[in-house]
Amino acid sequence: MNVIDWLTAALGEAAVASGVLTTDPARLEAARADRSGWAADGLPLAVVEATWVEHVRSTMRAASEFRVPVVPRGAGTGLAGGANGSAGSIVLSLDRMDRILEISAEDQLAVVEPGVINADLNTALEPYGLFFAPDPASRAVSTVGGNIATNAGGLLCAKYGVTREAVLGLDVVLADGRLIHTGRRTVKGVTGYDITSLLVGSEGTLGVIVGATVRLLPSPEGPPTTLAALFPDMRSASGAAARVTASRLRPAIMELLDASALERIAAHLGEAAIRAAFGAAEGSSFLLLRFDGPSAHPDGVRAARIVEEAGGTVRLAADEAEGERLLAIRRAFHLALAASGSVLIEDVAVPQSLMPEMFAAIERISVRYGIPIPTVAHAGDGNLHPNFVYSGAAAAPAVWDAANELFRTAVQLGGTLTGEHSVGVLKRRWLAEELGPDSYDLQQRLKSVFDPLGILNPGKVFG
Amino acid sequence: MNVIDWLTAALGEAAVASGVLTTDPARLEAARADRSGWAADGLPLAVVEATWVEHVRSTMRAASEFRVPVVPRGAGTGLAGGANGSAGSIVLSLDRMDRILEISAEDQLAVVEPGVINADLNTALEPYGLFFAPDPASRAVSTVGGNIATNAGGLLCAKYGVTREAVLGLDVVLADGRLIHTGRRTVKGVTGYDITSLLVGSEGTLGVIVGATVRLLPSPEGPPTTLAALFPDMRSASGAAARVTASRLRPAIMELLDASALERIAAHLGEAAIRAAFGAAEGSSFLLLRFDGPSAHPDGVRAARIVEEAGGTVRLAADEAEGERLLAIRRAFHLALAASGSVLIEDVAVPQSLMPEMFAAIERISVRYGIPIPTVAHAGDGNLHPNFVYSGAAAAPAVWDAANELFRTAVQLGGTLTGEHSVGVLKRRWLAEELGPDSYDLQQRLKSVFDPLGILNPGKVFG
Repeated sequence: MNVIDWLTAALGEAAVASGVLTTDPARLEAARADRSGWAADGLPLAVVEATWVEHVRSTMRAASEFRVPVVPRGAGTGLAGGANGSAGSIVLSLDRMDRILEISAEDQLAVVEPGVINADLNTALEPYGLFFAPDPASRAVSTVGGNIATNAGGLLCAKYGVTREAVLGLDVVLADGRLIHTGRRTVKGVTGYDITSLLVGSEGTLGVIVGATVRLLPSPEGPPTTLAALFPDMRSASGAAARVTASRLRPAIMELLDASALERIAAHLGEAAIRAAFGAAEGSSFLLLRFDGPSAHPDGVRAARIVEEAGGTVRLAADEAEGERLLAIRRAFHLALAASGSVLIEDVAVPQSLMPEMFAAIERISVRYGIPIPTVAHAGDGNLHPNFVYSGAAAAPAVWDAANELFRTAVQLGGTLTGEHSVGVLKRRWLAEELGPDSYDLQQRLKSVFDPLGILNPGKVFG
Repeated sequence: MNVIDWLTAALGEAAVASGVLTTDPARLEAARADRSGWAADGLPLAVVEATWVEHVRSTMRAASEFRVPVVPRGAGTGLAGGANGSAGSIVLSLDRMDRILEISAEDQLAVVEPGVINADLNTALEPYGLFFAPDPASRAVSTVGGNIATNAGGLLCAKYGVTREAVLGLDVVLADGRLIHTGRRTVKGVTGYDITSLLVGSEGTLGVIVGATVRLLPSPEGPPTTLAALFPDMRSASGAAARVTASRLRPAIMELLDASALERIAAHLGEAAIRAAFGAAEGSSFLLLRFDGPSAHPDGVRAARIVEEAGGTVRLAADEAEGERLLAIRRAFHLALAASGSVLIEDVAVPQSLMPEMFAAIERISVRYGIPIPTVAHAGDGNLHPNFVYSGAAAAPAVWDAANELFRTAVQLGGTLTGEHSVGVLKRRWLAEELGPDSYDLQQRLKSVFDPLGILNPGKVFG
């Protein structure tokens, strides 16, 4: 009996007939790729579209029995190849397990299946005046389970935290098919090791997340206040962001766009979109700030003064509609880039005070390799997304050489090669360098505790 | 050569002469105990008072060589026996490694040695307008390293997070003496597993924390607004707290005291302290709220209305001085109890909506066992501290039977047997019950990865 026959028997004919197990070539093909532009060589054996925890348990039992790799997968919106189905693997898709099982306004938590879309959860929470804080750019299409598996970030993290801080407990199917529950329904709890946090960001290499108890926050009240500013260069723009932080204001959003990014956005949206905000003012670097909560307006006014003193041409939005138009300039970044070629989206983070150094390094690397690297940054937490623009289907070695310099610089500055996208396949080459040999070794031994047979997303994270 | 001779040679005669290694009986005796009232049987072999990372490394190398248990220890203010030096062990005290190595206002972080006292760090941060959020009741005397080892909580957690959320990276000496660095100087980072979070709350069983990069938050601006209320019973008092949460207000502090606690505080402070706030109003249960930040006053006024509608007799402090007097009623809890007998301080947490059930259970348990259990609770995060008052030097079996019922109830309600004090020795009996057999087994195997020889704080956390 082969693994597919075994799995068919374990899942049951009815489940298989309803599409829980598929070997449809189009589905296999789709499961090889994510949004990184990279696809695995070869095809997976099958895709399991789990709709129930028992499907996940059966899959892991079959994989253990036959020593077949399993690649857990959400919506496939990853940017590091972490959920790409490799040759001969079973792709275990969780995106049909998409129920919101409970929303407790009293305890400010929700219990969800992993496949629920981030934005759908937030829509469901609106009537309660609560929100799930992780807000990756992919939130309209990415799953909460995927957000957890990658410890996703987003624009709001400096103020509202990363995904790890939003997860109270997890239901996890282990490599051998056992189901465990980690954490609890309370914010506090120190009983034993924090397995919940260990699983957050573990990219499907330690277990399969089949449920999550997530923490909710009260939605900020009142309208937000938004402002934007143009600067002659990135040094002054990121200096202004640093001054806002030093003033101890806490913007909900603080975003930077460099000249190369702003140019592409202007081409994409039309110059008028920029002119509408800034008139004839010149400037190549762009800073956007949004404040929310009860002191949004006075904070925005104070920030406007600070930014102006730092050399920016400031536009303080007169109302929410104008605030949305200013934010739309930032939001157009990815579409504007997609219109200008193939893109390798990178994701370094550095201490905020070293952002000017990082921007300068990006410019040097761009010049040296002759590769345009338009960059957007979440300035409040020092997370930069340099986008390597190239032509053709796959990034050339020169692009990876340039990225290599980028990663090394970020780590040397006390930062990391990935702030929120995770390691996957595309960054595993640099993992040991950032962690150092002792930590790398320790992490591999932790992996072995959870996955002694090496069947959970092998080849991801570790080389 | 025995372990002490080996260690003396490794540390160097000069270090030993200056008191880094001691076998002074009074010091050994003190190292057996913490603030829980429980002391280990027998005496440790020696106390190492490390002043330098190399002392820690030498100690771990010696311990590995001779298979001698090491008990890492901070200020000895624990409440679960987690740092008590057991017979034949080496107590590795970190409290002399108390330097603040760096404060970065720009990056809102500090780099500290583990022995720095929590309150001393916060005093040093005041000129920067920043603070280190973890605020255990012991903050004036407990170390940041101890706070990290127990994932300490406190009064501010519902709004500002537990210790885990304040730790960006750690320097850790492993069981064999190797030094690793976990995490980074940035808020975001998803390179490999979150070893930092795994070490937070690990109670010295996975490694010895010799340095920490901690996250700082901007201190709230303006004066806080404080209010207190009396209620006829705990059900209405905790109901009022739940209504405040449901209103989506975010108090910095929300504390409950039950009748038995309030009675002892009144006896300790004098009835006048309560009368000054509430005049002739009757009431046996006490709720205290503090709001900070830019909307402190309007939030306080809104909360006062909610609490009044929920049946409370409310006193909204007219100024900061009165606010401090109201908070002093809450703060008198531990001293008032210490004056009334020996105390076993417990630490369960439940979802906030189930606090009335938990208070009712505490009352039932108190009646059944004939043990007074005055209780204070951090109402915003459902963390209750039932204090079992008894006479004599050690808690009688009946006290532990009563505590046993308490723990079981908390876990059944979706909570935990320890919200912020940790497991240590005193709660290890119930660990497996809360975790379940599969998670318990997994945690023990994780421990083995870090500590294959079983020399790191053996007997703590696990049975």
